[in-house]
Amino acid sequence: MRFDEAYSGNVFICSHPSYEDSQVVLYGMPMDWTVSYRPGSRFGPARIREVSIGLEEYSPYLDRELEEVKYFDAGDIPLPFGNPQKSIELIEDYIDELLADGKVPFGMGGEHLVSWPVMKAMSKKYKDLAIIHMDAHTDLRVDYEGEPLSHSTPIRKIAEHIRPSNVYSFGIRSGMKEEFQWAKENGMHISKFEVLEPLKEILPTLEGRPVYVTIDIDVLDPAHAPGTGTVDAGGITSRELLASIHEIARSGVNVVGADLVEVAPIYDHSEQTANTASKLIREMLLGWVK
Amino acid sequence: MRFDEAYSGNVFICSHPSYEDSQVVLYGMPMDWTVSYRPGSRFGPARIREVSIGLEEYSPYLDRELEEVKYFDAGDIPLPFGNPQKSIELIEDYIDELLADGKVPFGMGGEHLVSWPVMKAMSKKYKDLAIIHMDAHTDLRVDYEGEPLSHSTPIRKIAEHIRPSNVYSFGIRSGMKEEFQWAKENGMHISKFEVLEPLKEILPTLEGRPVYVTIDIDVLDPAHAPGTGTVDAGGITSRELLASIHEIARSGVNVVGADLVEVAPIYDHSEQTANTASKLIREMLLGWVK
Amino acid sequence: MRFDEAYSGNVFICSHPSYEDSQVVLYGMPMDWTVSYRPGSRFGPARIREVSIGLEEYSPYLDRELEEVKYFDAGDIPLPFGNPQKSIELIEDYIDELLADGKVPFGMGGEHLVSWPVMKAMSKKYKDLAIIHMDAHTDLRVDYEGEPLSHSTPIRKIAEHIRPSNVYSFGIRSGMKEEFQWAKENGMHISKFEVLEPLKEILPTLEGRPVYVTIDIDVLDPAHAPGTGTVDAGGITSRELLASIHEIARSGVNVVGADLVEVAPIYDHSEQTANTASKLIREMLLGWVK
Amino acid sequence: MRFDEAYSGNVFICSHPSYEDSQVVLYGMPMDWTVSYRPGSRFGPARIREVSIGLEEYSPYLDRELEEVKYFDAGDIPLPFGNPQKSIELIEDYIDELLADGKVPFGMGGEHLVSWPVMKAMSKKYKDLAIIHMDAHTDLRVDYEGEPLSHSTPIRKIAEHIRPSNVYSFGIRSGMKEEFQWAKENGMHISKFEVLEPLKEILPTLEGRPVYVTIDIDVLDPAHAPGTGTVDAGGITSRELLASIHEIARSGVNVVGADLVEVAPIYDHSEQTANTASKLIREMLLGWVK
Amino acid sequence: MRFDEAYSGNVFICSHPSYEDSQVVLYGMPMDWTVSYRPGSRFGPARIREVSIGLEEYSPYLDRELEEVKYFDAGDIPLPFGNPQKSIELIEDYIDELLADGKVPFGMGGEHLVSWPVMKAMSKKYKDLAIIHMDAHTDLRVDYEGEPLSHSTPIRKIAEHIRPSNVYSFGIRSGMKEEFQWAKENGMHISKFEVLEPLKEILPTLEGRPVYVTIDIDVLDPAHAPGTGTVDAGGITSRELLASIHEIARSGVNVVGADLVEVAPIYDHSEQTANTASKLIREMLLGWVK
Amino acid sequence: MRFDEAYSGNVFICSHPSYEDSQVVLYGMPMDWTVSYRPGSRFGPARIREVSIGLEEYSPYLDRELEEVKYFDAGDIPLPFGNPQKSIELIEDYIDELLADGKVPFGMGGEHLVSWPVMKAMSKKYKDLAIIHMDAHTDLRVDYEGEPLSHSTPIRKIAEHIRPSNVYSFGIRSGMKEEFQWAKENGMHISKFEVLEPLKEILPTLEGRPVYVTIDIDVLDPAHAPGTGTVDAGGITSRELLASIHEIARSGVNVVGADLVEVAPIYDHSEQTANTASKLIREMLLGWVK
Repeated sequence: MRFDEAYSGNVFICSHPSYEDSQVVLYGMPMDWTVSYRPGSRFGPARIREVSIGLEEYSPYLDRELEEVKYFDAGDIPLPFGNPQKSIELIEDYIDELLADGKVPFGMGGEHLVSWPVMKAMSKKYKDLAIIHMDAHTDLRVDYEGEPLSHSTPIRKIAEHIRPSNVYSFGIRSGMKEEFQWAKENGMHISKFEVLEPLKEILPTLEGRPVYVTIDIDVLDPAHAPGTGTVDAGGITSRELLASIHEIARSGVNVVGADLVEVAPIYDHSEQTANTASKLIREMLLGWVK
Repeated sequence: MRFDEAYSGNVFICSHPSYEDSQVVLYGMPMDWTVSYRPGSRFGPARIREVSIGLEEYSPYLDRELEEVKYFDAGDIPLPFGNPQKSIELIEDYIDELLADGKVPFGMGGEHLVSWPVMKAMSKKYKDLAIIHMDAHTDLRVDYEGEPLSHSTPIRKIAEHIRPSNVYSFGIRSGMKEEFQWAKENGMHISKFEVLEPLKEILPTLEGRPVYVTIDIDVLDPAHAPGTGTVDAGGITSRELLASIHEIARSGVNVVGADLVEVAPIYDHSEQTANTASKLIREMLLGWVK
Repeated sequence: MRFDEAYSGNVFICSHPSYEDSQVVLYGMPMDWTVSYRPGSRFGPARIREVSIGLEEYSPYLDRELEEVKYFDAGDIPLPFGNPQKSIELIEDYIDELLADGKVPFGMGGEHLVSWPVMKAMSKKYKDLAIIHMDAHTDLRVDYEGEPLSHSTPIRKIAEHIRPSNVYSFGIRSGMKEEFQWAKENGMHISKFEVLEPLKEILPTLEGRPVYVTIDIDVLDPAHAPGTGTVDAGGITSRELLASIHEIARSGVNVVGADLVEVAPIYDHSEQTANTASKLIREMLLGWVK
Repeated sequence: MRFDEAYSGNVFICSHPSYEDSQVVLYGMPMDWTVSYRPGSRFGPARIREVSIGLEEYSPYLDRELEEVKYFDAGDIPLPFGNPQKSIELIEDYIDELLADGKVPFGMGGEHLVSWPVMKAMSKKYKDLAIIHMDAHTDLRVDYEGEPLSHSTPIRKIAEHIRPSNVYSFGIRSGMKEEFQWAKENGMHISKFEVLEPLKEILPTLEGRPVYVTIDIDVLDPAHAPGTGTVDAGGITSRELLASIHEIARSGVNVVGADLVEVAPIYDHSEQTANTASKLIREMLLGWVK
Repeated sequence: MRFDEAYSGNVFICSHPSYEDSQVVLYGMPMDWTVSYRPGSRFGPARIREVSIGLEEYSPYLDRELEEVKYFDAGDIPLPFGNPQKSIELIEDYIDELLADGKVPFGMGGEHLVSWPVMKAMSKKYKDLAIIHMDAHTDLRVDYEGEPLSHSTPIRKIAEHIRPSNVYSFGIRSGMKEEFQWAKENGMHISKFEVLEPLKEILPTLEGRPVYVTIDIDVLDPAHAPGTGTVDAGGITSRELLASIHEIARSGVNVVGADLVEVAPIYDHSEQTANTASKLIREMLLGWVK
Repeated sequence: MRFDEAYSGNVFICSHPSYEDSQVVLYGMPMDWTVSYRPGSRFGPARIREVSIGLEEYSPYLDRELEEVKYFDAGDIPLPFGNPQKSIELIEDYIDELLADGKVPFGMGGEHLVSWPVMKAMSKKYKDLAIIHMDAHTDLRVDYEGEPLSHSTPIRKIAEHIRPSNVYSFGIRSGMKEEFQWAKENGMHISKFEVLEPLKEILPTLEGRPVYVTIDIDVLDPAHAPGTGTVDAGGITSRELLASIHEIARSGVNVVGADLVEVAPIYDHSEQTANTASKLIREMLLGWVK
């Protein structure tokens, strides 16, 4: 892996040309082989970059411009098709290197399983790590029909790894009864249906702590994100998600890494999902990187 | 692996294998031949079943699982293409049989005219029947350009049949001036634009009564249900519709039958409409069948 | 140009057959050649007319029917492909004629640059003209990569032409830092993100004044208007936009002309955007033409 | 019915403004309520007209321009949704009038059943009428699941009406065994799979006779006409269909009427089917109307 | 109406109800996790079954009806998402059972890797097995970027397993230089670009031998099969593929099993690919099962 | 303009990293502002590059691999939206530089007007230049409704510039009568409908001459290239176009530059057009660059 040369493909708008001089590294994790419903998120990162050209560089929400944040778009991590075990090892190694170089990792999925090795790597560096998780789904399964490496398991894995009480899920509206019970019994926080209001309550309790934020685009209602694998009615609006990102920005938590996953462009003819994802990433960069 | 039994094919998720042992019967009414705008709802029931495989069996809204309700998916009623008269006769006969067997009918459309023979059959069994109707459109026409059998007439027909004061429409945002006037003059309830708040006011007045609920998916805003024949801006969100279903669940009314109609998959590339419909049916089953 | 004969193509529903007897003239401006992102709004007016056949003629919001307003659909202004200079000259001449004939112009775009010559023509007739502008974007650029004739410049042009303090923008959520600064420094009103609430505050200050209203369909969230060139998350709902139209209708301002622009049908498989646009035009006609 | 005034909607390119002065009348039959598979052809005629604007008026195949043929586009025949019996009566009356006025009818479907009343009307005027039928399907059923008015029956009806030996089908690649047997036993001509070569053999035998040509767009392979209700692989190319139209043009038969049916735009995202249909109609007009 | 039996759901048209009495077993292999380009073929089998309802039961090519062949649609083999190793083991076990029961396996993919365990199982039963392979791609890689279980390797695997000289590929128009060289050096037959003509030459040499036929739908030109993962221009028409199936039917080879793979419905808005696949399967059943 | 640094966006597969060391320069011309029908070809070059990742590097047609040709992908020429005059000046300057550096230009459109400044620049360097033009349309208009800078004029411009007898058009099936007449009267070659056979006759007469080849993707039938602005039935297959490219490769002409234009991805849901275009470019590079 060579981070010191410019990625030869499309990059996210305003990406800084130098890895060394950048504070943040943006990267894609084009994996979708364990999904149980509709695949296609492997093309998410590339499409998000492509449509980012339509973004303004200035955020009227945060009164800040992209040039004020130095981020390097390192392209997609090459992952072996159909091999989840090797894929997550490659991702963990990749993040280990980024962290060793003092970079803040910002990832684009790909299916949600890709967040597991990232969070695991983060927890090695940040002993007091907390996870903020926005999603329609609990993702707390032990396995999916026998497979422990599944897009429905990453939150369970990290919760067991850093203890459930360090994981905070928001916007959840789908899962097995057992998943909700496990969370309850093990002290993991789940806010059902809502994101912004419960977040306002939780954030003060996390002040000063290192936090990794993982956002599954399907926390949005299908009206706002039709381009994802598993659409589920009753989600939040993009306004609420933007406000939630801004709430974190204004809080005292220390965002040490983040990702946005599960954008599957093929299911969205208007490309609104990829466009929305690119705006979310702009706001995450401008709001969370000081 | 058992090869010696018929492949169970495409039924709504968790459908019970036995008709006799089931309390509810789920069936499709694949008719769209009288629609005045865009046809295609004949494929609604099949697609709703197909995508129901993506549903969780547990509702975090109602804390209940599908296995707690016994419903039998009887497939689609075979209806003669282009013959509305015979179609509605077949539907009425079908419902008569279901009711004679003591079943609770849950239907999937198809165009809204299919609800007319169902409601007519219901009214034979339940003398004190009330109708809760959620829709963008009044559906109170006497005929459409001379045709009395039209998707714009079913609520008029049932209102005249059981008296207008027993019919309660919610979310209405489209109709002819004459239709609104007729409702007003004849004591039929119409809540314009809103569903949840007026429903909270009406439900207590219906306590203890047998109620049939007919939901046209276009009561949702086109953002939430693009896959329908007649999209009409200014509708409610899927959150409001879910909350309305749960409000009925918590009320004292006795839901004796229900339907969800007008899902036309071809107009929705992301299939969010069919996915939303399958979730609505899950919540209707879990909330309304005690 | 001959306004005195019936346009030979599709017309907006209930269009009056006589130009002379009509108070309002409806026309299309099928231009999209200066857009910096996705073209296709040239087909907006034709598709809005085509789907208007699905509209009811009665508004339950305003309790008024289309036959109560006399408007003549004059078809599309023929514009030379790829020649913005000549196109805007042709549009200005066209509006000059309409105004000389005492007509109220209602335009359908086409890209937003088409509003510039219309507003310019309006300002010649109405010395005290104010502009109400609803949009996701500031459209206050001086030029786009060197081109002064661009879809990102029309509001700057009219603001400089009639003075910035006469221009009121609502719902803005995207633009360059310099654009927001220019507005601030020059006394132009910009309401960020919201439309209805700030409109309620501004309208009383405009009472009795002639007002031209220009609506870019992308003021709506992409969930409500996927069929447009530049989708931008975090917009308002179609309910808020309808309520805003009705708020203007109830206010004391004198709407002397209006347009709805940037409908690009190809990006919206369900055609909800064109259907929504046709409903908005119905409400604008019924609400703003006394 | 008033033919003497200009139709107020979109017209096929170069349509003549006067009914009286025209030799041909072009009309739409927007009916799709008896189809057994995918509906949507009701929107065929409107979309064919809309895209005809992209056509050149000159045919390099026939070295002739549209202005050399006088045809009047009379718009769509208003047909009652969901009422096939009344629809076919209205169509027959309409054609009777056209023929009484000495016009050559050119129809656009709509489902194939619409051709039955047209052909019946033709047979009243032309005693020696022959039918040339190009289609993927035999359309020789007596009924479809009990319904005699079905899009799978029109050729049977006309064959029984004017005797099977006067009907010539080409390109057939789908049907029930009984249909092929009935044709064989009753002396009706069916060319399976091919159109151009068998047509070359049959045309000389029809010289001098009045011929009605009915073309179902699905005679084309789905690659060339994806936008139709019942796609069926193994069809002919658009080149073969164009060549077949030109072969008829060069032959000694007297085309006294024609139609092109079953264009269903919604299934064809690229709109190639409607564009192809508009080109076919141009060639039919230029080749068959002397 | 019989409510007392399970709804038969979504099976391939005319599927026989009894496994025991059937000669052929039809099954789906919904796997797409190793594909290197566009995923989605997991939904191929379900969609092919769904659209098979539009098929006629009679083949005018072969003058035979589906009821003359007894086949049982066993549904999809449940395969673990993201686990290719276990998936191919499950498939091999499944085929072993079918063969032990004396059934002829007819499979629907899914990606092409699913054919490897089937062919391996076949080779255990049929010592003299030959493979007829129709495809755009060689599929002769040893691995794909290090992964031996990849959709680009199944033909290499079976060729090495039963010796390359027993494998005959047709229609190939894409592959690495090394793949073509390996085939040449190892005596494996590859017909580039064409299928029908070279097949006519090869078939006589295979007379009397047990043959397994594996068809990748992308052997068709993208015009005829847009709904597949890897479209590649320059392919054959559906007419040539149908003729090739019929050529095998008329030859003296003994088809002991077959599959059709790589139908990915999401990329084909008109659903022509799934419709074509269902017709191909009808012809394969009618032509190859005596 | 700096050619000596790597383009920072997506590049065509196997693009050489050094401008200086490359023989060919590949570049995009993302302009679509003068088109008279459907815009969108501005996104053609980016999408062709994106999907080129699905290509094999080896051509089984030519037995050659991409690494045998050194080409540098310089990205898109930045063109001012809506300003055709300045755009064509920028393109001409760009090509002048490339030619001064001794490079062979290979362009990707964009609308066909972009070929005019390229061909003009070529004619300055190559005095004996001949043009081979494959297209559905003559493109011989003097202007389009008054605009001389239109996508329907480039061939007329170059024909007048280097004399009509040096221009050879193939596959033409659409144009005004006057265009065909002008070609005939001025000694310009037009082969109607066919490409391969007439090319075989013409190529020997051009032996040894410098030839620029301009291919409009719509020379293909819409079945093979639905993703283009103006689809026109009756075109050639992708097999014939591939064979025509190979015929030129085998001939004695000296291809000194080439382009492929009018790919408009939005109209092609399956992306077959962009995939086909990327394959055509591979074959053009491998066949024409010695």
